[in-house]
Amino acid sequence: MNLKLRSANRADMVSVLKLIKELAIFEKEPEAVEISEQTLIEDGFGTKPLFHVFVAELDETIVGMALFYERYSTWKGKSLHLEDLIVQEKFRGKGVGHALYTKVLKYAYNNDYKRVAWEVLDWNKVAIDYYISTGATVFDDWRIAQINEKNLKKFVKKHFEE
Amino acid sequence: MNLKLRSANRADMVSVLKLIKELAIFEKEPEAVEISEQTLIEDGFGTKPLFHVFVAELDETIVGMALFYERYSTWKGKSLHLEDLIVQEKFRGKGVGHALYTKVLKYAYNNDYKRVAWEVLDWNKVAIDYYISTGATVFDDWRIAQINEKNLKKFVKKHFEE
Repeated sequence: MNLKLRSANRADMVSVLKLIKELAIFEKEPEAVEISEQTLIEDGFGTKPLFHVFVAELDETIVGMALFYERYSTWKGKSLHLEDLIVQEKFRGKGVGHALYTKVLKYAYNNDYKRVAWEVLDWNKVAIDYYISTGATVFDDWRIAQINEKNLKKFVKKHFEE
Repeated sequence: MNLKLRSANRADMVSVLKLIKELAIFEKEPEAVEISEQTLIEDGFGTKPLFHVFVAELDETIVGMALFYERYSTWKGKSLHLEDLIVQEKFRGKGVGHALYTKVLKYAYNNDYKRVAWEVLDWNKVAIDYYISTGATVFDDWRIAQINEKNLKKFVKKHFEE
């Protein structure tokens, strides 16, 4: 099969959204996806794009994608965050994920990013072993904290008078 | 004492760097800080700022700061990442951290961010309990992965021919 990687365009966002939904099912949170194709287009292709996407095509069909954006480390400087690396289930094991991962790391290196970061579920041993084999570190002692939109609103309303 | 919170300017980066170094000592990695005042000024105050900082002043002396930037959730949309929330050790317990945290959350809410995220060490129980009390979630099953500059270079050189 003929594998081709390229930057995504607006028309690809329909395929990208399908992949996002597929990953949410794999991560056991199918209801969590609130984003729409329209929002992806507006946020990714406006005057100030909030992310960049590489898509992987096998025989001209999109079978995977990597979505990433800039972050900032106060220790190292500008860094890249790989938010999603997704390969459609039936096309796994063909090197598509490795090709996308390599493309993102090359992009980071060529654009002088000091670090690339991402997040992985602790039960996803296959992914963790792969990342470590590439020279990445998976940290045991850090936890991710988040406040969602509902609780953010609640907190702000409560502290409005302060 | 008179507490004042405001957005940082270029001249504040000397104090911000001191706070970054103090946090690195608390986190047991004093050697990890490679960033300079000059880089913070260039990256934070150029045509495309990579982060925003609120500083906290007590009687006109900077005693704390919150550094944050935009991220992107493929489930929720544009989100904010709180990279560092630091209060100088001798000024802790006076509500400075809470005031900075509240200011960041208000900023997120007022600017329509769908989520605020940050990272916390699993042994920092005081911080974790505080975050949970504000409505945040601390995730047990996610791990942070990173590839540093040295290993990024190594990986890219190795895959150059592919």
